[in-house]
This record gives sequence, C-alpha cells and structure tokens, in this order.
Amino acid sequence: METVPKATVRMNSKKTGSEAGEDALIARIRRALPSRPGAQLRTGIGDDAAVIRPARWREWVVSSDALIEDVHFVAGAQPPESVGYKALARAISDLSAMGARPRFFLLNLALPRERIGRWLDECLQGMAKAARRFGMTLAGGDTARSRTIALNLTVLGEIAPGRAILRSGARPGDRIFVTGELGAAQLGLEIVLRGLAGQSRWRELLAAHNYPEPPIVLGQWLARRGLASSMMDLSDGLSTDLTRLCKASGVGARIQASRLPMVKVPRALAERGVEALPLALHGGEDYQLLFTVPARLAGRVPVKHDGVAIAEIGEIVRGRGIELLAKDGKSGRLAAEGWDHFGGRA
Amino acid sequence: METVPKATVRMNSKKTGSEAGEDALIARIRRALPSRPGAQLRTGIGDDAAVIRPARWREWVVSSDALIEDVHFVAGAQPPESVGYKALARAISDLSAMGARPRFFLLNLALPRERIGRWLDECLQGMAKAARRFGMTLAGGDTARSRTIALNLTVLGEIAPGRAILRSGARPGDRIFVTGELGAAQLGLEIVLRGLAGQSRWRELLAAHNYPEPPIVLGQWLARRGLASSMMDLSDGLSTDLTRLCKASGVGARIQASRLPMVKVPRALAERGVEALPLALHGGEDYQLLFTVPARLAGRVPVKHDGVAIAEIGEIVRGRGIELLAKDGKSGRLAAEGWDHFGGRA
Repeated sequence: METVPKATVRMNSKKTGSEAGEDALIARIRRALPSRPGAQLRTGIGDDAAVIRPARWREWVVSSDALIEDVHFVAGAQPPESVGYKALARAISDLSAMGARPRFFLLNLALPRERIGRWLDECLQGMAKAARRFGMTLAGGDTARSRTIALNLTVLGEIAPGRAILRSGARPGDRIFVTGELGAAQLGLEIVLRGLAGQSRWRELLAAHNYPEPPIVLGQWLARRGLASSMMDLSDGLSTDLTRLCKASGVGARIQASRLPMVKVPRALAERGVEALPLALHGGEDYQLLFTVPARLAGRVPVKHDGVAIAEIGEIVRGRGIELLAKDGKSGRLAAEGWDHFGGRA
Repeated sequence: METVPKATVRMNSKKTGSEAGEDALIARIRRALPSRPGAQLRTGIGDDAAVIRPARWREWVVSSDALIEDVHFVAGAQPPESVGYKALARAISDLSAMGARPRFFLLNLALPRERIGRWLDECLQGMAKAARRFGMTLAGGDTARSRTIALNLTVLGEIAPGRAILRSGARPGDRIFVTGELGAAQLGLEIVLRGLAGQSRWRELLAAHNYPEPPIVLGQWLARRGLASSMMDLSDGLSTDLTRLCKASGVGARIQASRLPMVKVPRALAERGVEALPLALHGGEDYQLLFTVPARLAGRVPVKHDGVAIAEIGEIVRGRGIELLAKDGKSGRLAAEGWDHFGGRA
C-alpha cells in the first residue's frame, strides 16, 4: 500500500538545468499570450504569484474551469486552436454570466511530452485569439507533465459593487430570456460525431462548437442597467441550466417551445436523425446567456444587442420544475437532460 | 482524423437529473470545506463565479497550482488526507512567498468515478484542515470526471499596496536566508520510495512530505517590515529555486555548505545511501522561504520567528550562477538539479 513506482514520482533530482525545460516553456507561453503587466497587473507571469491592484469601486468576479482531454474534447478530433480558444472562452462565459468585465486569467497547463511542440503552439494561438477578443491578460499559472492534456483556466473580471447578477434572483412573473441560437454548439458536435467534420459544406456549422462567443457586452449591459433579476450561462443545456436557476431561486418556470430560438438543422442532417428541439432543450456548450427580467422591465430588453439575438421564451412561476408548452398546445414537464459529469446513466 | 469515439465525448444528452450527480458533489464539497460567504466574499460557491469585494488599500495576490496523480503523487501510496492538505498548502506557499495574507481559494476537481466515495471524503478532510490552518475560504471551482485525479487550486491573498516581495529585487551584497530544514520533504519521500513508510519509527519524518507548512506569518512579517529585497518559496529545490531568483534579479550567489540548515538523516537511512547535503541542495517540496535582505538590514532578521527557524546561508554577488563553498574550503559551481517537469533526462 505504501510502495511507490519510482518512475512516476515527481521528485527525483534529475539533472535538468532550469534553462531547458519548464522555464523555457513558461517563456514560450508568455510570448504567445497577451501578458504585459500594466497599471492594474503589477506583477504578472514569472513570479510566485500575480499582484493585481483593484480598480476603485470595483468588485472582483472570479471563476475557475477545466478542459480535459477525453472528457471535454478528443485531441485527435478537435483542432488544437479550437481547444485553446474554447478553454478560455468557456471560462470567460462564467464572467459574462455575472455581468462582469473580463480582465485577467491564469493558465494551468498539464501536457504529455508529445504535445509540447506544434500542438501547443496552435493551442496557444487559439487561446491568444480568445484573450484578445475578450480583452484578457495572462497573469500567471503553472505547467506540469501529465498523461493527458488538461487546461485549467482561472478568470478574473470586474464589476461595480452590488451589480453582479446571481442565479438566485428570479421571482414569479419574471420573463425568461435566452440569447443566440439554442443547440448550435451541439449541432456542431453532432456533425463531428457523425464523421462529417471534414466536409467543407458543414464547416460553418462547426464554429459554434469550436469557437463559442459568450455575449460579454450584453452581460455587462444587463448588469449596468439593473434589468436582469437572475442570470447564468448555458453550458450544460437549457433543461439542466434552467432547472439550476429555478432551484437557486426557489421557483418554477413555464417555457414555450414555439418561442425557442432553435438552431436550424439542414435537411441532410435532419434525414440522419438530428432534430432541432432536443438540441435546443438539452444541447450543451452554447455559452449563451439565460436570464430573467421583472415583467414591468421586460419591454426594455431589445431583440438584439451588440449583434446578439435575444428571445423571450417564457416566464417564472411559483412552485418547482419546468413546464414546456408544446407547439400543439399540449404541455408537459421538462426534465433536466443536459450533461452531468457525475450523473448515472439513463 | 475527425472521427470521435462517442463514449469519450463530453456532450451526450444522457438523462441524469441535476439533483443526482455533479450538483450533489458540489454540495458535498461545500459542506466539507469552509465556504461561508462573508463581508468580503459576497457570493461564493454555487453560482457561475465568486464575487469578492476588495478590502480598501489592499492589492490582490493570485496564484494557481495543480496536483496531478502519477505526476505529483501516487494515489495508492499517499494518504488521501495528505493529498488534499498538500494541494492547498503548496498553492498557499505561493502567497506566502509574496508576503501576502491567504484569503480565498477555488478548487477544480477532476476525479475517476471510483474516487468519489471514501477517497474524496478523506481528501476533503485534509484540504479542510489546511483551509482552517491557513485561514482560507472556498469561493468556487468546478468538478469533472477524468481518468486520473487532478486537483487544481487557485488561491487569492491580500497585501498592502506595493508590499509584495518579488523574485527580482536581489542586489549584490544582499544576504541570503532560508527557513526551516532543507531537504526535510525529500527525506520523507525517500522513506516512501524505499517502502519504509509503513514503519512507525519513520512516521514523524514523513510529516514534512505529507503536511508541509508554508511559513505564512513570517512571509507577511517580512513584507510588512520591508526587510526582504526578494523572496520566493522553495518548491523545486534550493539549487533550482536560487538559480531562478538570481536569474530574475540578474545576479549571482555564493552560499556556504556549512551554513545550510540541513535535515538530519537518521543513521539507518544514511546507511541506505541517503545523504543530507544533496537533499538540502536539490530536494523539492519543502515550501519554505528563500529570501534576500540588504546587508545593512540583515541584523534585524531574527533566528526564529513564529516558531520558524531562519538561517543566513550566503550572499548575492555580481555575475551569474551559484558558487557553493564546501566545508573543506573548496568551492565549485552549483548547478540547478532540482525538479523540472519538462527538462530532459540527465
């Protein structure tokens, strides 16, 4: 029970030279990603920890998220650039969901030796793309060798005091909104799963799966205006995430299938059994926003903001659970059927 | 190239119910670890992100660190309680190394299904022990299933503006200090590697390996007094870490073997080839402090502070590299021979 296979133990006093390995890798990461210290980031990557001076009258919003090989992605099936982009974008989505402005991130990178070359370069390029797009500066992190790839991202954002939008604020009568096209990321994954990702005709539909775009400008706008009573991001599918929001708020919800902004499924895929409604209800990884607005303020929510479509899909009700009003007028209970890492099988 | 084995893909719309799996696991983590929101932690675990109100006149110190199965520890060989304790303690060591006061942490937990039961309970107990000992509150995180255990810890600390002690401030003439007994953690590991960890006579010597104690009170004291010109923690061995500090400061160092506070190696282990000097020079994971003090202030550094022994081991010099003055009066270059994740083999 106490015997350790020597080969797998961390500490082994091998001659290495600090120039060669880890330090060189850190220098490479530093060059690839925006990481220049500034007025607020006083000490960035390269020291034991980052030192950040808070802006006056700002609260910090902090979240941490992992992207793991063979759990969240398959290295041979997903372009490395997308892996890097997505790892950061989905972490940023948690800031977006609070209404915060993204600022700094830390990257913990665990890699097998064979991924240190070209794969890592492309992965970092994708991450740099997301960093620039969402205004993030690398502030620190860690590297380690491991059997599988794991990217752990910690993101820090800023918000005016008391303005963060929580999951727990939904009240009966509030209107329910979602952004974007529900199921778009899952549709991209279905294309990959069917071995069709190589065909150029589907390329455009893969974007939502490979390069999600959390609507951070809208999130901040909602927080500034004080319009939303509750908010979260759609990461595990509407049915699961709305169930979570309702549970946190102690309420139920009624949504209308006819109002769901569903992704359009091309006929060739529909013929292969891909249906829009299940994608929209249960498909994950859209990284769009789900939020509620008190009825008297609902008219102030535009149908589009900063290029992002916004749709009212139902309302918050007393009680528990989600009622789905189908297009034929029938209604039924909607069960949480999105992804759950530790749930049992159906 | 674009085909994905279905079984390994994250998003698969399996029926799960948000009550059962991940949410229940998060609730368990929440109960096990100190996680109550307070005046500063306005929103903790359970929402998309944590919301933290900065104290007035404080900067934030942030670091992120991973503890990975078969890289940093072997699950069958290390008590789960120690894994949890150590994961947090080594992350805190990075805050200690800046002189910061530990405050909040985020935990990204990746686990195989078979570790969710008793193993996780004991791991969380160990982490709770470290959290209470070092005054940390859990603010958020993430859970995912994976083939091997990975604990990613992000830690946040506070410090007065401009007081953080960096690696880059060492100047020629500065005196070099270390805390604790160098090589103590490595000695513990050597006992494990020799299959002796089960023998009760060595139990006490395992503590430094299993339950490191970063000297956070001393770190804060040095920062408050403005005594140290540079500082870092000893995580990868003195030879490697001092090389890093010197490189960051653009200086060299001269240290005396006779002054190193070396761990005492029991005769029975010495007979098995365990030597104190290599342990002290290259052994990692001590999580003690390495710092420099301008010569005119060196007299103000006590030999002990808050129960932690402090030893002066040499001085910073112009140039590059480390010169080791041996006990016999001879001197030689000391190469960085501590642990490097991505370094080549000797």
